Amino acid sequence: MSENFELGSQLREFLKGLLDEKGHSHQGGVEWGPRVNLSGLKENYKGTKVEPYTATPAGIDNLALHSTDVFTIPGKGEYSVDFSGYFRVARDHPTTTDWTTFSIFVNIIDLRLYGKHKELGNIAVSLNPEILSTGQLFPAATARGAAKCRIATGVVFDLPQLGLSVFNKEPILLMNEHVTSIPPVDDPNGHALLFMLAAFFERR
Amino acid sequence: MSENFELGSQLREFLKGLLDEKGHSHQGGVEWGPRVNLSGLKENYKGTKVEPYTATPAGIDNLALHSTDVFTIPGKGEYSVDFSGYFRVARDHPTTTDWTTFSIFVNIIDLRLYGKHKELGNIAVSLNPEILSTGQLFPAATARGAAKCRIATGVVFDLPQLGLSVFNKEPILLMNEHVTSIPPVDDPNGHALLFMLAAFFERR
Repeated sequence: MSENFELGSQLREFLKGLLDEKGHSHQGGVEWGPRVNLSGLKENYKGTKVEPYTATPAGIDNLALHSTDVFTIPGKGEYSVDFSGYFRVARDHPTTTDWTTFSIFVNIIDLRLYGKHKELGNIAVSLNPEILSTGQLFPAATARGAAKCRIATGVVFDLPQLGLSVFNKEPILLMNEHVTSIPPVDDPNGHALLFMLAAFFERR
Repeated sequence: MSENFELGSQLREFLKGLLDEKGHSHQGGVEWGPRVNLSGLKENYKGTKVEPYTATPAGIDNLALHSTDVFTIPGKGEYSVDFSGYFRVARDHPTTTDWTTFSIFVNIIDLRLYGKHKELGNIAVSLNPEILSTGQLFPAATARGAAKCRIATGVVFDLPQLGLSVFNKEPILLMNEHVTSIPPVDDPNGHALLFMLAAFFERR
């Protein structure tokens, strides 16, 4: 929501009835949590008014995303890459409207990030179609307290100059313990909870 | 290795040629990493001499395990349970014998923990047969430095008094950043890297 992706906005609205988003994104692979039913969910773009400390009604958020990822290649060292792009988060209906008791399930239904490294070349990140990336928003302890969010994410890093793709089999866990609005408008970027997560390779 | 499980020791040695351990533990479900080939791996029990700071040759370690797990049931609070039991870890051949460069892949091939809670009743933990629990040992920075270990674990908590089973779809990540021998003889218990990991329920 912090940037607008006009490219897809009108087109998506227009085609909405025609797209089978479930079939499109996930081809019956691994599911790390509950699937959100996308039918009837409103698309939210930049400019949507978001009330703080409110269990916002269900919808699909189109959000800008930035990330700095560090890759370790054994024997070669560490490679830090800045990525930017967007992701789309489908939020299910909140279980209650109360900020201190609600629960909301989410799925990441699209994700595109681009980065460039002087040795690795261009890197494109996209959602792994074999995995349903799932998460949850948890209530705050008080009416003006911070809610929490976790999303288990499965992605593919394409490295065309190196002729390979890299993907995770365990979740990249995106977490945010300081959520004051849904979606987090100013900065949806929490951090990742990882410990030496393995990257698996595939020749392209 | 810190306790002996004599029950299985002689029997397992005797039956070793007859058991198909791969088929036994994993029925073709999710694999969170590489599978270790179990054929020819030596069983290690209490009393096996373990050299510190050494990339130990491949084997299957039978280790005692203790764990304190905290379950949060929304609206009901937190339940802390002490578990004890054992697990079996299959270690693949190290890639090098040098403590500062080796890598070793591991699988948890059996896990049994028991605990009791005054409200929840008896709780039995076992390996989820649908998931291959996989991990890796990473080298130390120096010849007398600490190696690191991570194992992504999928388990089932059986709660017979409540008539249900609980399991994780994302890994319970067991990690240890202070490994000075392989296996860690004195205390194989690192800690778990979690953030509000969801438990899924199944009526029994």
